[in-house]
This record gives sequence, C-alpha cells and structure tokens, in this order.
Amino acid sequence: MKTGFVGLGNMGLPMARNLLKAGHDVIVYNRTRSRAEELAAAGARVAATPAEACGAGIVMTMLADDRAVEECVYGEGGILKALPPHGAHVSLSTISPALSERLSQAHKERGQGFVAAPVFGRPEAAEAARLLVVAAGPADAIERCRPLLEAVGRRLVVIGADPPSANTVKLAGNFLIASMLETLAEAFALLRKSGVDPAKFLEIVNGSLFQSPIYESYGKIIAEQRYEPAGFKLLLGLKDVRLLLAAAEAAAAPMPVASLIRDNLLSAVARGQGDIDWASLARVAAQNAGLKS
Amino acid sequence: MKTGFVGLGNMGLPMARNLLKAGHDVIVYNRTRSRAEELAAAGARVAATPAEACGAGIVMTMLADDRAVEECVYGEGGILKALPPHGAHVSLSTISPALSERLSQAHKERGQGFVAAPVFGRPEAAEAARLLVVAAGPADAIERCRPLLEAVGRRLVVIGADPPSANTVKLAGNFLIASMLETLAEAFALLRKSGVDPAKFLEIVNGSLFQSPIYESYGKIIAEQRYEPAGFKLLLGLKDVRLLLAAAEAAAAPMPVASLIRDNLLSAVARGQGDIDWASLARVAAQNAGLKS
Amino acid sequence: MKTGFVGLGNMGLPMARNLLKAGHDVIVYNRTRSRAEELAAAGARVAATPAEACGAGIVMTMLADDRAVEECVYGEGGILKALPPHGAHVSLSTISPALSERLSQAHKERGQGFVAAPVFGRPEAAEAARLLVVAAGPADAIERCRPLLEAVGRRLVVIGADPPSANTVKLAGNFLIASMLETLAEAFALLRKSGVDPAKFLEIVNGSLFQSPIYESYGKIIAEQRYEPAGFKLLLGLKDVRLLLAAAEAAAAPMPVASLIRDNLLSAVARGQGDIDWASLARVAAQNAGLKS
Amino acid sequence: MKTGFVGLGNMGLPMARNLLKAGHDVIVYNRTRSRAEELAAAGARVAATPAEACGAGIVMTMLADDRAVEECVYGEGGILKALPPHGAHVSLSTISPALSERLSQAHKERGQGFVAAPVFGRPEAAEAARLLVVAAGPADAIERCRPLLEAVGRRLVVIGADPPSANTVKLAGNFLIASMLETLAEAFALLRKSGVDPAKFLEIVNGSLFQSPIYESYGKIIAEQRYEPAGFKLLLGLKDVRLLLAAAEAAAAPMPVASLIRDNLLSAVARGQGDIDWASLARVAAQNAGLKS
Repeated sequence: MKTGFVGLGNMGLPMARNLLKAGHDVIVYNRTRSRAEELAAAGARVAATPAEACGAGIVMTMLADDRAVEECVYGEGGILKALPPHGAHVSLSTISPALSERLSQAHKERGQGFVAAPVFGRPEAAEAARLLVVAAGPADAIERCRPLLEAVGRRLVVIGADPPSANTVKLAGNFLIASMLETLAEAFALLRKSGVDPAKFLEIVNGSLFQSPIYESYGKIIAEQRYEPAGFKLLLGLKDVRLLLAAAEAAAAPMPVASLIRDNLLSAVARGQGDIDWASLARVAAQNAGLKS
Repeated sequence: MKTGFVGLGNMGLPMARNLLKAGHDVIVYNRTRSRAEELAAAGARVAATPAEACGAGIVMTMLADDRAVEECVYGEGGILKALPPHGAHVSLSTISPALSERLSQAHKERGQGFVAAPVFGRPEAAEAARLLVVAAGPADAIERCRPLLEAVGRRLVVIGADPPSANTVKLAGNFLIASMLETLAEAFALLRKSGVDPAKFLEIVNGSLFQSPIYESYGKIIAEQRYEPAGFKLLLGLKDVRLLLAAAEAAAAPMPVASLIRDNLLSAVARGQGDIDWASLARVAAQNAGLKS
Repeated sequence: MKTGFVGLGNMGLPMARNLLKAGHDVIVYNRTRSRAEELAAAGARVAATPAEACGAGIVMTMLADDRAVEECVYGEGGILKALPPHGAHVSLSTISPALSERLSQAHKERGQGFVAAPVFGRPEAAEAARLLVVAAGPADAIERCRPLLEAVGRRLVVIGADPPSANTVKLAGNFLIASMLETLAEAFALLRKSGVDPAKFLEIVNGSLFQSPIYESYGKIIAEQRYEPAGFKLLLGLKDVRLLLAAAEAAAAPMPVASLIRDNLLSAVARGQGDIDWASLARVAAQNAGLKS
Repeated sequence: MKTGFVGLGNMGLPMARNLLKAGHDVIVYNRTRSRAEELAAAGARVAATPAEACGAGIVMTMLADDRAVEECVYGEGGILKALPPHGAHVSLSTISPALSERLSQAHKERGQGFVAAPVFGRPEAAEAARLLVVAAGPADAIERCRPLLEAVGRRLVVIGADPPSANTVKLAGNFLIASMLETLAEAFALLRKSGVDPAKFLEIVNGSLFQSPIYESYGKIIAEQRYEPAGFKLLLGLKDVRLLLAAAEAAAAPMPVASLIRDNLLSAVARGQGDIDWASLARVAAQNAGLKS
C-alpha cells in the first residue's frame, strides 16, 4: 500500500521503518529534513511539506502534541487541504480528545475519513513492531488502513466509530501507568525508610499478586534508579497527564490521583528532571521522605 | 506437627482446616466458641482460652486487628504467659509494624520466638490453600514452623529476621491493591462519562500492557458493580490503610496517594458502604463525577 | 477624561456606571448591545465595535475569559489595530499571566501601553465603587489612567512594570479565598457530624483569631447554605482555578491545595452546581461526609 | 480561689503565673520539678504528684498530648483517685475528643466534674493572659471555675455541656490556621517563581480582603523565613493534625486538605524541621517548586 507518514521522532521513525519493511510504499515528512533522509536509504520517498505526503490518499501522523498536529493539519501546506476527498488521515499521536473531535469534524466536512489510532508502547516496542494500537473512526477508513496499522503493532483493537474515544482510552491507559509509578514511588520510600529492600518487595508482591510485566520492568527501573537514557521523558508524561486532566474537566469527572501525579511531575520538572525518564517521579516521593534520591 | 490456632474468622477458619487436612494436630480457639466446634468434626481439639492453645509449643494467631492480638497475647489467659520457653508465636494477622516490634521484644524476653507471617489473598485463596505467606523472624523459629506455613499457602517467602518488616511488606502490598482500585475507579468514571465501556478499556489495557490477573478480577468487579457479598469488607480495607499511614508516619515517609484513598474510603463508610466489598471505593469516584453509582 | 469601556457583564456594567458618575466621558461596547444602551441614559455613548471604543486613546476591558479578551483585541474590529500609538489598553479582566504577557508584547510593538489591572470584589463592591484594583504596567500609562482606576475602586495598588505580575497576584488572591472556602467546608462537615453548630464555631474562631470580614461573610453563606442568587458563579471560580493551575505549571510551582479545590469544584459542576455561588463548594465536603447537603 | 495546676510547659508556666498574679492560690505540679520551683518564688506551692495538686478540689491540666494526660489522670498518684467527689478537673490541653469523652465518663462515675477548656494562642498570648478559652462541660463546674479560666485568657466562650465538643472546636480551629499556612506556602512559591514579592502580595490581599491579624503575622513569618525560635513546634502541629484526622475518621467526615497538610508536615519532619516553627511548612512547598528554602 501507499501512505504518507508525517513525524519521525523517536516513535515515528521506527514506525515508518516498519511500514517500509512490511513492503509498503511510504512518503515521509519531518520538520527536520535530515531524519527523513535517513529513511530514504530504506526506500522511503521524502516530502517537502505535509501536503506532499498526502498524495497517496492516506496520511499517518505521529507528532509530539496538539499544537504540532494542528499546525500540520490546518497550517499552510497542511493535510486538510491537500488530502483528496475519500482520503484518510490516521492520527497516531497522543492528543486531546477535544482536538480529535475537531479534526474528525473538519475531515468529515471535506469528505475525508479521520481515524484516531494512538499507540501504547515505548520506543523499543515501536522498533520491534510490538505496539498496541487502539483505533476509532469510520469503519471503512479503518479497514482500508488496517494493513498499515498492523504493520506497526502486534495488536490492533478497534473500539468504535467515534475517534475521541480512542484518545480517551490512550490517556486513561497512560494514567494507569503513571499511577503505578506514583504508587511504587510511595511504597518504596516507606520500605527504604523501614529497612526493607524495595526490589525484594516487588519480587514478592508482583511475583504472586500482580504478576505484571509492566510492574516488573518499571519497578526495576525505580529500584535501580536507572532514569537515563529516558525511554519516555518526564516532560512528555506531564503533557499526557495535562491532556488527561483537560479531558476529565471536559467530562466533569474529577481524578484526584491524576491531579496529585501532575503536581509531583511538576515538582520533578522544577528539580531539573524534565528530560530524564518519567519513572524518576519516584525521586519526589523519596526526597519528600528525606532521602537524597 | 502440633500447633495451636487462635482466631477462626473468614480467613482463619479455612486456614485451620487446611492445617488439619495436611495432617497436623490442631488445637483451636475462637472467642465465639461455636466456630471452633465446627472444626472439631474435622479433627480439631477445642481450647477454652488462648492459653490452652499454647500447649503444643507453637501457636498461630489470625485476628482482626491490633487490639484483638494485644488482648490475646497480653490479656488474662493470654499467650505470652502460657507459651513455654522456646515456644513460637506465629502471627498471621495484618497488624501494625509497631505492635509486631513490641510482640517481638516481649516474646524474646521470655525466651520465645516471634514470627510475623502475614498473608496475601482473599477467603477463596485461604480455602484453596493458595495464600502467599510473607514471613520474618528468628530463622530457627521460621524453619520449625515451615510445614505449617506451607500448609496454608502456595508460597512462603522469608524476608529476614526482623518481624515488623513482614508487616510493612503486607501493608505496602495492600496499598498497591488499594491504589489500583482508586485508579480504576477514577479512570472508569472518566470513561463512562466519555461514552467508553470500562470493561472494554480494561480488556485492552490489561490484556496488552498490565496483563495482571488482579487487574482483571478487580476490574471486572468494579465494571459490574458486584460488591456483595464482600470478599474483603471496606471497613477492613480502611483499617489496613490506617495502619499503613501510621507506619508511614513512624517512618516519616509521606504517602499522599494512601491519604487520598483513606479519605475516599471514609467517604464510602459515611455513605453506608462499610460492610460491602472495598472495591466499592469506585462508587465514590463515580458519584463525585455525578453518576448515580 | 475620555475612555472606552468594553464588556458590560455583572462586573463591567456597574464599573462603567461609576466612571460616568465620576464625570468621565465613556464610550461603551458590549456584544449584546442592549446592555450598552442601558448606560446611554446615564450618559454613555454606545460603540458598535471594540474598535470604535478606542477613539479616546484609552480603552478598558472587563471580559469573561482569555478567549473573549483575545477576540476583542486580535479579532476583526479589534482593539490592537484601532488603538492609536501612545494609546493605552487597561485590562481589568481576570486572565492568564501568559495572555497578559502576549498582550503586553503586542501593544508594545505598536507603541501602545498595556496595563493589567485586575480587580478584587464581588458585584456589590463593583456597584459601590469599592473594588481593590491591582495594577501593573508602564508607569506613564498607569499614571495617565489613574483617575479612571480610582473611580471604580476604593484602593489602587501599583505593583510594578510587568503586567503579568498583576494577573498572578489576582489569581493567587482568589486562591486564598477558594482555599478558605474548602477549609471551612471540611471543618463544617466535621463539626456538623460531631454535633457542633458551625456558625457558633465560626463566631468563636473568627471572632478571636482570624477576625476577618471575608471569613465572616463566606462562613455565614456556607452555614446558611445560601448559594442563590450567585455572587460569583462556581463555574467562574473553576475558570480562575484553572488559570491559576496553568500559571503554576508555567512557573513549575506545584499547588496541591489548588488541585484539590479544582477537583472538588469539578465535582460540584458534575452535580449541577455550576451556576450557583462558588461557596457551594461546601456541599461536596458535606456529601462526602454522608450529609444530604 | 484555690486550684491545682499540672503541667508547666511553655504554655502552662505562664498560665499558672497568671493565676498567681490574679491572686489565686495555686499548687503546681510538673514532672521536671525545677520548673515548678520557678513558680514558688511567685507564691505557688509545689506538689510532688498530680494527686497532691488535687487537694483544693479543682485541678487544671495543661499537658503535651493524650498520653501525658492519661498518665496524669489514670496513673499511680493520679488525679482520678485523688480528686474529691464534687471536685472538678479542667483540661486545658489539646487532646482528642475521644479521650475527652472517656475522661468525662470516668470523672462522672466518681461524682466529679470534667471540663474541657482548650485554649487558642501562642506562648506570647499565654504570657499576656490573652488566650481564647473554649469550654464545654457541666454548667455548674464551668461556673465554679470561671474566675480561673478568665484569669488565663482574654475571652472565655462556653459552648455546651458536652466536653468533646470543645476539643473538636479546638482541633478545627487549628486546622483553619494550618490550612492558612499551607495556602500561603503554595501561593508564595508561585509568586516567588513569578517574580512577585510575597510580602507585597500579602500586604495587598490581606490589607483589603482578608484583613486578618493572623494572616499578617504568619504571612510575615513565612515571607521572612523566621522559623526560630519556634512559637509552636512543627511536631506539635503534626500531633494536632493527627488528632484532627482521628476525629474526622471517628465522625466519618473526610478532610482532604487536612490529609495533605499532614503529609507535608511529615515531609518537613523528614527534612529535620520537627523542632522549628510549624510555619516552616512553607519550606516544603518552596522546595517542591525547586527553590532552596
């Protein structure tokens, strides 16, 4: 299949590469052109604007935040005007349900399909084509793009016709992870000050009760305080929690644990942790307990 | 082996039964004698006081809270005076690390061994002898009691010589579960108000990211609002969080998520949910989002 | 003096009237023209666009939120293009420090002065010209507008040359009030459930310790649950807390009490309290304690 | 009048001195006898046990916490047995409503009157006999002790016949102060990071809106970071919040701001601030915002 792909960050680049590997014909765009050219060797064509990446009738976007997506879609040389009628825009980014709704309306007005298909997984998972893709949008558009979505992940779950619902699921899922981080952080601070080895605690509790690989991997990162290089930067985690809280406000559903996590992430940023892994949220709990780190 | 067993509540009764099944010789005591007599048919001898259950030199206690344990140990006809030197007291209850420390000292002064061996698991797990037992205390006492501890659980983990550390691990483990409940509660409220089915969300997120049986089982309970009969009463959950916060205060390690959970459990109690399952904590988040239940 | 005045809501209308009363020559604009015409009888001229209100070289704006101010300034027929060089824009609205900064830059580029002059006080205070005005901006612009600012309030405090600082002071001041409301709410819930009359408590504590008229007036409103008609709508309170939290995020200064208040205001909105007085925040604490209201 | 006075800490000592100044005949007891002897020069008689201080038929106690009061009342040489029938025990300490209730019952059973009369004010106020005294208990006992209570404070408020209600009012009043501290702490952190002088902010906001001497004095302490010598030690503040939260739990009335304050006080203790003034709670907010202090 032919597709455009816009946004070659540390998630987008491996995803585009996996599309190429799967035999798709990909025309890529990235604001910093050099990253796009990296992919030329692997068979990608390089576009000079997002608009140019729309020629194939399908364009996928994987961008940092709402603002970047808005610019790419509504800006000059943007997707909205360039995509042909019956074309489809597949938004893989973690964006607000509110923007997802606006994009859905805008594309519909032009006879285009909009699919929200945010992904779960860290860069390693993107490289291994092991992402979990949660998609929502018009059924025909999703079916048409299915081979592309399956090429970047190990599992594609379609949850309905309403694009923002996929974004809400993504934000709520990230919230579960963030909450696990904060919980482990607080538990570890207590255990350390009580003379119990957190790693041992986790082995016991996760080994028998939770039995979750994500508890194991993040628990280990926190126990070993191994926050660099960042798999997922703390500032990005803060961005996601901000989107979640905005969605919660729009839905009038208070989420006090999310608020608390936001405040602690903010404190981590104030202490200079913005660019290290968001698991370093644990440092806030540790320092609040009088520990050095 | 011969052992005493004190406390035949909905956890203690199946545990004592499993000791009998495993061929041990058990002398049981319960404040309400009728429950002890239930076990006579299964081969137990019935004691009239905790002291009488100490004759075998080993006594296990499985009681509701600190006060009940203190009464049984320090009270008239209590364990402390009745247990022979070199005897061992195995405390299976969820009690405060502070009481565990006091008991440890008191028994040591009399030449007795004190083992803290709190258990993870709900009544069904107790019945199936599938509990996780976390033990700490003098190595010789633990080894001596090992066959008994193995008879009630599927796994015994020894974490060291210091009894309170096992109690801290138990409280911290329960905190992980409580935090999961609160997190699911908040996420579900958002999803419901955004028109996404929480059960579907959980299937996606847990199926691929968390992959945890405990998320699955509790998630299902909350999604179906199936809070009766109670597997673990909300009031008992509140008690455990109270013990956790006391331990956190003693260690000077703030645990803001635990504080938040305490407040929400308290709100649930104020609304009459004290005797239903603690997963009904989710109702507080739902009602705070304007949902009926 | 001559001035334009844009925005005749329940704060702007009495403020414009007081300018007229003080003998100033006022040209008013309001989106819903009828409210502007109410003032014609009192001597105001009526403008058809914000631009028309800029003729005098000074224009004051008192609008609901950032979006309304942006529209009035940057939109078609807006202030930015219409205000003559050396003109001054006095922004009385409660807006974000971030927007205040953008407005300050935009006006400076055109040789215009921008003064942020948010006000403290409820509609009654606006009517009585008893507002507290906190101003920041270029000294010459403030001095030029001083007679106007003094006409709407009982006290004008100039805090510096940097406009956003006045907006931050306004948001922080509102936070003090919101926090007082939440604190009284929680204290009253405890007292009511303990059989102590909150009104009596307040009389004692405020009478001797706090001695604050604002505690007295809000305390009375809460004790009597007199939330209608709204002096300050809960939804507006939520907006202000949202602005505060955005400012706190921009400054990387966590404000957990503000987060907590936001969540409780959100819960109040979910329960249908958006249009009654924000003191009804107290209902959330009461209901969380199992009280009916 | 004749009275016993037990507990000569930094509140009790000046209170007992004021009783002497007012012409009363005081027999004092303090665990560390030297402090009692300080008062002998001022005319006090010195007792060797709390019991000895009960001879006059009235005994006032001003002690650090529940445990100290329990020991003095129920312990050997304690008040309960020594006080004659129709005697009165006036408890000035900040204790739990639960203990107040138990004391009330115990004294009633012996035909004695129990008056809870906790006081508001820092040591300077105690010295100046400017305390606010809030009393509850049997009317006849209160009337009998009125001259004594009036001698230590500037105002005596009787709130009813039920002793614990006075203790609840005291704890709720302290909560208002603690909440003000936390609120100022968070607001100041925002202001400092936004380049606004907190002292100036307070002058503006308190000068016009709150107009409260307690905001002014504590605001100044925080703005100047003048936490030593301690007027009220942070550890005592933590104790009071703990009592409040226990009362809130007993009444099933969640108080999330109190929980948050508890956690921040705990963090302050972990950082070594236990013995400086509790206004240093502000350091936690400052450090969480990345400020040094």
